[in-house]
Amino acid sequence: MDLSKLRKIFGERLATSEAIRRQHSHDESWHVPISLPDAVIFPENTKEVSIILKFANDNKIPVIPFGAGTSLEGQVHALNGGITINSLNMNKIKEVNLEDMDCKVQPGVTREDLNLFLRDTGLFFPVDPGANASIGGMCSTGASGTNTVKYGTIRQQVMGLEVVMPNGEIIKTGSRARKSSAGYDLTHLMLGSEGTLGYITEIDLKLHGRPEAISAGVCSFKNLNGAVNTVIEAIQIGLPLSRIELLDEVQIKAINKYKNTNHNEKPTLFIEIHGSPFGVKEQIQQFQEISKENDLIEFDWSDQQDEIDKLWSSRHNAYYAALNLCPGKKAFTTDVCVPISSLTECILETKRDIEASNIIAPIVGHVGDGNFHLILLLNPEDKEEVNEAKEINDRLVERALRMKGTSTGEHGIGIGKKNFLKTEKGNSVKIMSQIKRSIDPNNIMNPGKIF
Amino acid sequence: MDLSKLRKIFGERLATSEAIRRQHSHDESWHVPISLPDAVIFPENTKEVSIILKFANDNKIPVIPFGAGTSLEGQVHALNGGITINSLNMNKIKEVNLEDMDCKVQPGVTREDLNLFLRDTGLFFPVDPGANASIGGMCSTGASGTNTVKYGTIRQQVMGLEVVMPNGEIIKTGSRARKSSAGYDLTHLMLGSEGTLGYITEIDLKLHGRPEAISAGVCSFKNLNGAVNTVIEAIQIGLPLSRIELLDEVQIKAINKYKNTNHNEKPTLFIEIHGSPFGVKEQIQQFQEISKENDLIEFDWSDQQDEIDKLWSSRHNAYYAALNLCPGKKAFTTDVCVPISSLTECILETKRDIEASNIIAPIVGHVGDGNFHLILLLNPEDKEEVNEAKEINDRLVERALRMKGTSTGEHGIGIGKKNFLKTEKGNSVKIMSQIKRSIDPNNIMNPGKIF
Repeated sequence: MDLSKLRKIFGERLATSEAIRRQHSHDESWHVPISLPDAVIFPENTKEVSIILKFANDNKIPVIPFGAGTSLEGQVHALNGGITINSLNMNKIKEVNLEDMDCKVQPGVTREDLNLFLRDTGLFFPVDPGANASIGGMCSTGASGTNTVKYGTIRQQVMGLEVVMPNGEIIKTGSRARKSSAGYDLTHLMLGSEGTLGYITEIDLKLHGRPEAISAGVCSFKNLNGAVNTVIEAIQIGLPLSRIELLDEVQIKAINKYKNTNHNEKPTLFIEIHGSPFGVKEQIQQFQEISKENDLIEFDWSDQQDEIDKLWSSRHNAYYAALNLCPGKKAFTTDVCVPISSLTECILETKRDIEASNIIAPIVGHVGDGNFHLILLLNPEDKEEVNEAKEINDRLVERALRMKGTSTGEHGIGIGKKNFLKTEKGNSVKIMSQIKRSIDPNNIMNPGKIF
Repeated sequence: MDLSKLRKIFGERLATSEAIRRQHSHDESWHVPISLPDAVIFPENTKEVSIILKFANDNKIPVIPFGAGTSLEGQVHALNGGITINSLNMNKIKEVNLEDMDCKVQPGVTREDLNLFLRDTGLFFPVDPGANASIGGMCSTGASGTNTVKYGTIRQQVMGLEVVMPNGEIIKTGSRARKSSAGYDLTHLMLGSEGTLGYITEIDLKLHGRPEAISAGVCSFKNLNGAVNTVIEAIQIGLPLSRIELLDEVQIKAINKYKNTNHNEKPTLFIEIHGSPFGVKEQIQQFQEISKENDLIEFDWSDQQDEIDKLWSSRHNAYYAALNLCPGKKAFTTDVCVPISSLTECILETKRDIEASNIIAPIVGHVGDGNFHLILLLNPEDKEEVNEAKEINDRLVERALRMKGTSTGEHGIGIGKKNFLKTEKGNSVKIMSQIKRSIDPNNIMNPGKIF
């Protein structure tokens, strides 16, 4: 691959050392990389991205967008080599409009960068998938996370995008208006397209006012039913919960061990409520009443920010806590999402399936959305374990689809769930492929992902 | 056009009388129909729609989807004849899932039908564009309306669609899960595509819990600045207003005349707040405090449902009240949407423009979204008046785009705003056309709209 033309432009920002290529060959998933990119480029602006894509398109070279590398279904793997574009240097917050509560950022800005920048403005960016993902990456996978139940996923935050198309052309989708009915919604076509339709170079994001009061709590229940029914009832009466996370007893045990805490080792909800001081108090009380009718064991609340931070640090460390349960093993993570009325049944069937296997797999979930994750612990060298985990995952997805849910609530298809997509979406995958071909006829953008 | 094959299947549900064809030749806009459809068919289910589309595609006959006929940019006009498909008989509410707060409806169900059906469930469907539009039509134009500021537009309510594609194939987009990252977001590609990509035959909708308490009020201000600044400040401190409608003094005068009311003839907000009884009271108080700092004249609230209904009936009759200002004239309605920080400036410039003309044009707006409408009153036979109105509209859109807004917040492009779409979206219109061609190569679906 002759990259001399690009090397003249990018100099040392075009890397071909094996170490850097290897570092860009994988994400945080269990998927084993089968090859390395031929080069990694660190552009700084839209024009530079356009130059790379035009060159790649003219020479039919694969292009792989790379953000923070925190994807979970192999989205950044360089399956056929090619050029990986790392957004690390595209990390500028270009505008913050306080009156309109919005901002414009480059794709390499991470969610923590943005919230740090906003800390004195009274505004914040709510989407929180746990990892400190890049905002470009979050757009590409349609990310969500702990407080989707109140604020929505990244899809509800993006008002418009600047995208470099596969032939190097730059388009703008959306506007800074809060809504528009002007033509096809290319913004939402790009969101969740996992880098297969173009490279996102700028994002117009909605921001939200920091709540006056925040309170968070831990509620443990005698059984899973009680925890999930509490959430269903709370949502039905319209309690504006901001975060509702479910952790099963295996995950709580893992956290107790990892963080040296002493939570009841029972199905548990981590909750957060935002609002006015009085409103929050009123809502905690209502939530407690519902919990009591649903086999509550313990109800423990705090409005101290350090206590609240500790709680969410426990939640965000669920993955590492799980790994710590079986030192030496790796984590095969997967997620599905079902209508909330089927959530208890779906989780209980899944738990029985795990218990009948040789695999340890804690469950954590964004239960207000009907979305949950398995963290299947395994030795990737042990083929039998890998197969067993894959079969559990197969049955998990079948179960979610049978219950009218989806094969992935937030991790995306990547390379891991391509077959499931066909089962789930049937002939609408054909329409997706037609769109892909019409926009990227040379199939340079992240080939081998989704399809 | 030989429709005998379809006539055998649809019998009297295929109409070719001039009266019915004429009735289907136009919507509620000022656009004058240039031709009639050749036939109007009233299918009852998805399979029948599929038969019609396959036939039309094989014979390259235009197909025009028709709901309640309440569109405002000529979306249902049969520009080149063809077959109009009326969704009147596709009016079944197929599922209501109380626990999941969702439902499945056919496209001909209107928003009032649905809310009537839901009245004893504690749930409701929030999108309210004023007219009793069909839900299929609302999906097609990306409708919104008075309470978007709290609940979002129709785009945020739809979880999935069943769509008959131009070749008669039936696809499903989305699922009943609250979120998904499985493949391209075809749901949002279809929403707002104005019938140009397929015919929507089934819609999975989110529903919302009816609020415990509702209170509504009328607040008049010395000037427009005061009204808009009140809204900006209320949103910034996170007051969860459900409806925030702005009516200028011309519109208030029209309502006073039409409904025999005696509102202050000043820039006025109609507000509604949903929540717990205490929460609503707290919020009214906060809203009043902000209003007072912004040149409030009068602040009048009620929690009596009949008073509230009367208020919204005044708002929903804005169009007829405006017509009543100049008996014999017709209304040329248009809408734009801008970032809220530019709203005052945009409306004031627009008012100066109207005042310098011979046209009377009240302004009403969904001010929480930055969206407002002009109702330009004119005699469609008077070319000079029509031209003057068109020029006001041209300058309105230019102004909105200069302020980083959009040429239409909720009415869509139809036949009226095609040139504005090119100005607004630039080369992304090319991407839209590519998608259109890849999905509908014979251009049978609502040809001449959007592009």
